[in-house]
Amino acid sequence: MSAVQHTDPSTSYPVTDRNKVKRLHERGSYDRAAVHAILDAAMLCHVAYAIDGQPYCTPTLFWREDDRLYWHGSAASRMLRHLKAGTPACLTVSHLDGLVLARSGFNHSANYRAAMCFGTARIIDDAEEKAAAMRSVVDRYYPGRSAGLRPITAQEAKATAIIGMEIEQASAKVRAKGVGDDEEDFALPIWAGIVPVRTVLGDVEPCSRLVAGVEQPPELALYPSGNTLGQSLLDAQRAYEVDMA
Amino acid sequence: MSAVQHTDPSTSYPVTDRNKVKRLHERGSYDRAAVHAILDAAMLCHVAYAIDGQPYCTPTLFWREDDRLYWHGSAASRMLRHLKAGTPACLTVSHLDGLVLARSGFNHSANYRAAMCFGTARIIDDAEEKAAAMRSVVDRYYPGRSAGLRPITAQEAKATAIIGMEIEQASAKVRAKGVGDDEEDFALPIWAGIVPVRTVLGDVEPCSRLVAGVEQPPELALYPSGNTLGQSLLDAQRAYEVDMA
Repeated sequence: MSAVQHTDPSTSYPVTDRNKVKRLHERGSYDRAAVHAILDAAMLCHVAYAIDGQPYCTPTLFWREDDRLYWHGSAASRMLRHLKAGTPACLTVSHLDGLVLARSGFNHSANYRAAMCFGTARIIDDAEEKAAAMRSVVDRYYPGRSAGLRPITAQEAKATAIIGMEIEQASAKVRAKGVGDDEEDFALPIWAGIVPVRTVLGDVEPCSRLVAGVEQPPELALYPSGNTLGQSLLDAQRAYEVDMA
Repeated sequence: MSAVQHTDPSTSYPVTDRNKVKRLHERGSYDRAAVHAILDAAMLCHVAYAIDGQPYCTPTLFWREDDRLYWHGSAASRMLRHLKAGTPACLTVSHLDGLVLARSGFNHSANYRAAMCFGTARIIDDAEEKAAAMRSVVDRYYPGRSAGLRPITAQEAKATAIIGMEIEQASAKVRAKGVGDDEEDFALPIWAGIVPVRTVLGDVEPCSRLVAGVEQPPELALYPSGNTLGQSLLDAQRAYEVDMA
């Protein structure tokens, strides 16, 4: 571990060649809270793993508990069959926050927040941890919801694989600023600016087959129309953590 | 290629074990137009590649020309140094369209559109192709814009690497429907429904240092406030293709 950069282990992930931010490193950070904030604002991640040298980039829903990431899928999926033995993986979350139009092509960019997490992904075999995770996959997004649902059947549990990955290393990378033209280019008569991008919630669409008299449950209050998805997911994560404490 | 599934090569990508949709395969497709529509609605993708068995999942801006995908970055980045020789890669685009709350945990889901593309990623060495790509990285999003910008310098061209990848195989996977509860669960007195999710544009924020009298350029008309990012990017791709034809 000679390449380890010294960081405070209580607040930061260790830095090695694997997670060191190489490009535009002034945008990078190894801070736990910064990484968690980017993860917790997302429901969808992309997981990279390799089978016989062929990389796969798989989109999936995921959630976080402390420094452990979970995702799930069918026990028949390509990814999950290959994760049984434990395999190196990289789970990445990205948020696009704006398009940046500059006075030169080179300085065109985007505002974004991204977190890359490295570890060994493994199927959760422990029955208790798996059962807890099958509730968490609902409760992390909709705190308290699992208790009121039709219970999971043995067949469903068998058909579902839960993957866990301890974050061994991670990095956050953020661009959140105005147009970054070269100083001498600001004087050019060329338009430049930002187009902000937001991912927002629409009006809830109740299932057309709801039983008469069934009301919207309290956990839906976290997802009001017009809210950003990121804010709702951060609020849900906080409420979930309070419930679990 | 014994595992190849028969598809019409004029409209579909070849299917082998690499891109065959394994999980919930009724949501899958190998149709070129379906894959392109998902790609063209996005600016941000995730690329998976492996270095010495360690997978990386890197978020990056990208664009498409016919069946060729391009992305770019600093010539110093980790990814690009390893792509010089050509390396197997998987480029994935995902759009989250809605949260699906069901009457059982098992049937909770999300509405989404995702495309996975497989090929060999290579640095573009040809000077002419690289120069064209450095204009396209602007013009694909903002058709016609590159002609009015401060020209690219030799130093900028040297510092930028452009990666190209021919799509050898691809798959699209889409969920776009209501709550998919088990038939007998619809009778339960449990709330179920969809929270729609949309990625939308905000009001343009002009650079605070614009030269007096500089007007918004015509290419910005593709990005009106309130539009979905996906629609703007599809419109921009179409306008770009017309310009190139």
